[in-house]
Amino acid sequence: MKKVAVVMGSDSDLPVVSKATDILKQFGVPFEVRVLSAHRTPVEAAEFARSARECGFGVIICAAGMAAHLAGAFAANTSLPVIGIPVKSKYLDGVDALLATVQMPTGMPVATVAIDGAANAALLSIQMMAIYDEELREKYDAYRAEATAKVLEKDKAVSAQFAE
Amino acid sequence: MKKVAVVMGSDSDLPVVSKATDILKQFGVPFEVRVLSAHRTPVEAAEFARSARECGFGVIICAAGMAAHLAGAFAANTSLPVIGIPVKSKYLDGVDALLATVQMPTGMPVATVAIDGAANAALLSIQMMAIYDEELREKYDAYRAEATAKVLEKDKAVSAQFAE
Amino acid sequence: MKKVAVVMGSDSDLPVVSKATDILKQFGVPFEVRVLSAHRTPVEAAEFARSARECGFGVIICAAGMAAHLAGAFAANTSLPVIGIPVKSKYLDGVDALLATVQMPTGMPVATVAIDGAANAALLSIQMMAIYDEELREKYDAYRAEATAKVLEKDKAVSAQFAE
Amino acid sequence: MKKVAVVMGSDSDLPVVSKATDILKQFGVPFEVRVLSAHRTPVEAAEFARSARECGFGVIICAAGMAAHLAGAFAANTSLPVIGIPVKSKYLDGVDALLATVQMPTGMPVATVAIDGAANAALLSIQMMAIYDEELREKYDAYRAEATAKVLEKDKAVSAQFAE
Amino acid sequence: MKKVAVVMGSDSDLPVVSKATDILKQFGVPFEVRVLSAHRTPVEAAEFARSARECGFGVIICAAGMAAHLAGAFAANTSLPVIGIPVKSKYLDGVDALLATVQMPTGMPVATVAIDGAANAALLSIQMMAIYDEELREKYDAYRAEATAKVLEKDKAVSAQFAE
Amino acid sequence: MKKVAVVMGSDSDLPVVSKATDILKQFGVPFEVRVLSAHRTPVEAAEFARSARECGFGVIICAAGMAAHLAGAFAANTSLPVIGIPVKSKYLDGVDALLATVQMPTGMPVATVAIDGAANAALLSIQMMAIYDEELREKYDAYRAEATAKVLEKDKAVSAQFAE
Amino acid sequence: MKKVAVVMGSDSDLPVVSKATDILKQFGVPFEVRVLSAHRTPVEAAEFARSARECGFGVIICAAGMAAHLAGAFAANTSLPVIGIPVKSKYLDGVDALLATVQMPTGMPVATVAIDGAANAALLSIQMMAIYDEELREKYDAYRAEATAKVLEKDKAVSAQFAE
Amino acid sequence: MKKVAVVMGSDSDLPVVSKATDILKQFGVPFEVRVLSAHRTPVEAAEFARSARECGFGVIICAAGMAAHLAGAFAANTSLPVIGIPVKSKYLDGVDALLATVQMPTGMPVATVAIDGAANAALLSIQMMAIYDEELREKYDAYRAEATAKVLEKDKAVSAQFAE
Repeated sequence: MKKVAVVMGSDSDLPVVSKATDILKQFGVPFEVRVLSAHRTPVEAAEFARSARECGFGVIICAAGMAAHLAGAFAANTSLPVIGIPVKSKYLDGVDALLATVQMPTGMPVATVAIDGAANAALLSIQMMAIYDEELREKYDAYRAEATAKVLEKDKAVSAQFAE
Repeated sequence: MKKVAVVMGSDSDLPVVSKATDILKQFGVPFEVRVLSAHRTPVEAAEFARSARECGFGVIICAAGMAAHLAGAFAANTSLPVIGIPVKSKYLDGVDALLATVQMPTGMPVATVAIDGAANAALLSIQMMAIYDEELREKYDAYRAEATAKVLEKDKAVSAQFAE
Repeated sequence: MKKVAVVMGSDSDLPVVSKATDILKQFGVPFEVRVLSAHRTPVEAAEFARSARECGFGVIICAAGMAAHLAGAFAANTSLPVIGIPVKSKYLDGVDALLATVQMPTGMPVATVAIDGAANAALLSIQMMAIYDEELREKYDAYRAEATAKVLEKDKAVSAQFAE
Repeated sequence: MKKVAVVMGSDSDLPVVSKATDILKQFGVPFEVRVLSAHRTPVEAAEFARSARECGFGVIICAAGMAAHLAGAFAANTSLPVIGIPVKSKYLDGVDALLATVQMPTGMPVATVAIDGAANAALLSIQMMAIYDEELREKYDAYRAEATAKVLEKDKAVSAQFAE
Repeated sequence: MKKVAVVMGSDSDLPVVSKATDILKQFGVPFEVRVLSAHRTPVEAAEFARSARECGFGVIICAAGMAAHLAGAFAANTSLPVIGIPVKSKYLDGVDALLATVQMPTGMPVATVAIDGAANAALLSIQMMAIYDEELREKYDAYRAEATAKVLEKDKAVSAQFAE
Repeated sequence: MKKVAVVMGSDSDLPVVSKATDILKQFGVPFEVRVLSAHRTPVEAAEFARSARECGFGVIICAAGMAAHLAGAFAANTSLPVIGIPVKSKYLDGVDALLATVQMPTGMPVATVAIDGAANAALLSIQMMAIYDEELREKYDAYRAEATAKVLEKDKAVSAQFAE
Repeated sequence: MKKVAVVMGSDSDLPVVSKATDILKQFGVPFEVRVLSAHRTPVEAAEFARSARECGFGVIICAAGMAAHLAGAFAANTSLPVIGIPVKSKYLDGVDALLATVQMPTGMPVATVAIDGAANAALLSIQMMAIYDEELREKYDAYRAEATAKVLEKDKAVSAQFAE
Repeated sequence: MKKVAVVMGSDSDLPVVSKATDILKQFGVPFEVRVLSAHRTPVEAAEFARSARECGFGVIICAAGMAAHLAGAFAANTSLPVIGIPVKSKYLDGVDALLATVQMPTGMPVATVAIDGAANAALLSIQMMAIYDEELREKYDAYRAEATAKVLEKDKAVSAQFAE
């Protein structure tokens, strides 16, 4: 199975990113976690991106805040799909990271998820790899069925509580 | 090869969406185009989404404006990756569509591209399918090399113009 | 009397939603409370919406955050008036939910109230049902008169405090 | 049948408001149109609002731009449901009118629709009156079925066009 | 001397408003404080505004949050200058109140100060009354000179601290 | 009678500013118009502000766009009330000018009107001077009565048009 | 004298950028103009940045729109000061470019000017180089004096026009 | 070596500003710290700006919040490069200060850094002075190399942690 690369621009993003790695572990998808900055380690970031496909990666997830260039810098150096997680930092509630991640110019897409949406980034990487991976798709469907079941249980509990 | 579904919420989105179909044609990726509204044809939209995988689709691209629920409604009914194009409508410069597309709750990702970013949506769908499709990847790399070459040409022309 | 359905996208919205049920109780309006997600339980949500009128509901109140599709998904499946409460979640101060709720396309209105405005959602549902229900209208007028009286009392207290 | 009042803050709002009156005519719902400003004719506006119910109105629709106080001023003076249409004026793309209309304090709801969403305001007024009016509901269902049919036709046309 | 009316839409605005009354006390300007809601006590608010000039008021200060209609409602009912304080409430950081206060239509100005800018509202009311009141102007100039002196002292302290 | 100073940061603001001078002419209020930039002519702007009161001015109106510092720079150099008109320039719809004008720190108020709200700035200056000027107040009341009459006429015309 | 590099992400930015080159020509500052994309030509962009100082450049000006990563990518690869011009593209009025340019993380500053502020970017580059270049400073002071003179002339013309 | 002036509009900005002075100390760059308000001490601020160059300053850093006019007021009175730090105050998350700092009119640039980006302001002042100062440039390069090394260390630690 292809691996997923989970890259963050700073190790302060780890609490957000860990929601992605939790999902990947749960699905048994192999992954590597890296701290690579588009600004502080541009050479290493570009090298990683350029060799990612031949190193066995299938998808790259990038998490960054503020003027979040990490996902774009990766997209510029690989033809693998790149998923961008805009990370809320101390100011502007993540709007800066959202726009810096999603508003990519023509020819260089970044698949952007919600602000701090690391779990969804992992699920999206799984959906991408499940296009041609039946076993992974089954796991994904089971995960979704469970989520649905949980809502239905809560629905039962809450509606009963108010019906009293 | 898996097909790409290109769905729009209203046929007024066609000028935006055609930039996606142009890319898909250029890459020889099979696709179908549909007009399905999350609000006006909820039954048909849900049915299409639920049967999309077994109908041979690999990725679904959804374009919608305003309170853009189309991509989310598709994501709710399929485990295929769903790409959302927020379409600028008459007001708010597409911010409403961007937030309604990207801010999906945990468990239900939509891979969001830039406002009116239909070309990138198509390229992203190709990147996804190219994870396990070497031939498609080669086409993609060639496309990118050409884009790079064009910029370099323009660089030569512009820098010469100012060097005179 | 017609019932009011109070639906939330996640049971984490309960603290907000309870301000609506408090009002409905106070007015003696029958209501049911449900947890139904446009994304995690799309089938159940659509079914509930489609049968709501024949089940005796007169108005549906939907509370949801982020890319808040719940009210829209209900509006798509019933001709009953749907009231949308945009719920503030952790990011963006509820702006995402507000725009995803209010910016509905032509043909599919959602009566939107303020961010976290659950009490007003309940009052609005009562106003709607009071169009043809004289008794409910009288209760509503009494409620309003009481609110006015409270402000006048506070006015007296505050202006006296500063007049000393 | 109860009448609908369609009030605008300035006659410059007429092009927007006429989309509401078109719908009301089409449904055969009786209505009156007024130009009443919360700021320039506060006395007349308050009087109209206060006597609206006994004059036979069931719902009041208010359209206003900028610091759009009209709907709120009406809500303050009647217990009828008030629908607010935030009108886009020359600046800020209607955001000022949207917030001034929707962010009403507890106890004083305004059922807000999209920016310039006059057609939806009319449809919402019809939904409200149809809670207890079976005939109106049937008309509404027919209207919706027609809208669905139109999308399905366009779907057929567009999907055929790309299938060639 | 003319009095200043300090009106708030809800007594929860008192902590903000008290920064205005502190200034007025300090300057010895007579004032009255009222709790009057544009929505909950529209009759009393309009009456107060209409009789304010003949009751000896020279300026009216209005503080309100959310869809802040109070200052506009006062402006509609008096020809006295009305100063609006947009109050930050729980959501949107006061942007709703700011726009609802400042974006008044032609013919109906509200002199708007910063979000929660109650001290400045009081100072502005003093500036207005000091146009024709030499004694008040002298007090104002003294107040400003003191503020300048304080900054210069702090400048001395801070620059010395870093010069060590 | 005191004069009103109408100052603009650039002569490109003249079309906006002329709506203020039209009002002042109509009311027979003496005024002077100046082009003074907080950035390009800081010395002259400060000098004008400092001597404004003794030169017979009662109110200063400042119009500026972008990082609109003009009104603030005037407020820093005079104790006269300063009215700020945020001018919409090519970008950001005037939001930059609005925030740079209204968000003044404690001690230094600017009476801010709507974006491009020059007519209201003039009316506000008249309201300020009318606090102690009975004749001016009468003119103002007449102006307002006329505005009210115009709305009532339009109301008659529009309501008649739809009543046919 | 050190040269200034003027880099744009796409040749569609040329109309904006030419306002910078006009200023540089007027001051006789040597400059080169390049089209280099952070995304389409990442290798060439990084190489140019890395060798800029030894090639005789003193300042780098970068103009880019949307998720404007160009200035940041340059800042990551040179220790020369980098000036960022956020370019307004078709959507969002340049807010995306502004935030993506200015919100750089600690350690990697980009000196950001106004949206489309190319003339100011050039002037800023001249100010930087004039810190240690007396002749350039004199030219700059003369330029500023001329700008001041122009405003004073316009002031004379406009104030005379209204004084008639 | 030229000195850097670090000016703040209020001593409440000191916690932000101290991140700038820490950097300047670390680099051995001489600096002075001042508290000067564009509004409360306009005369002193202008005087300081006008004499800054001859007093041996090379760059001026200005930190201010809300309607942040400080950097602009300095830029108006000196030809030295002025760096603006928009300071987040209690409301609006620093957006007001950002726009009031960066959106300067043509002819009067302010080199704007991120909200509260004081460390970057200091680094930018060092980059400016290092254009012609080889020794300072070497220190800067060493600082950057260290920052890169730190990220690489963290990368090693984090990737190892997840590889276990």
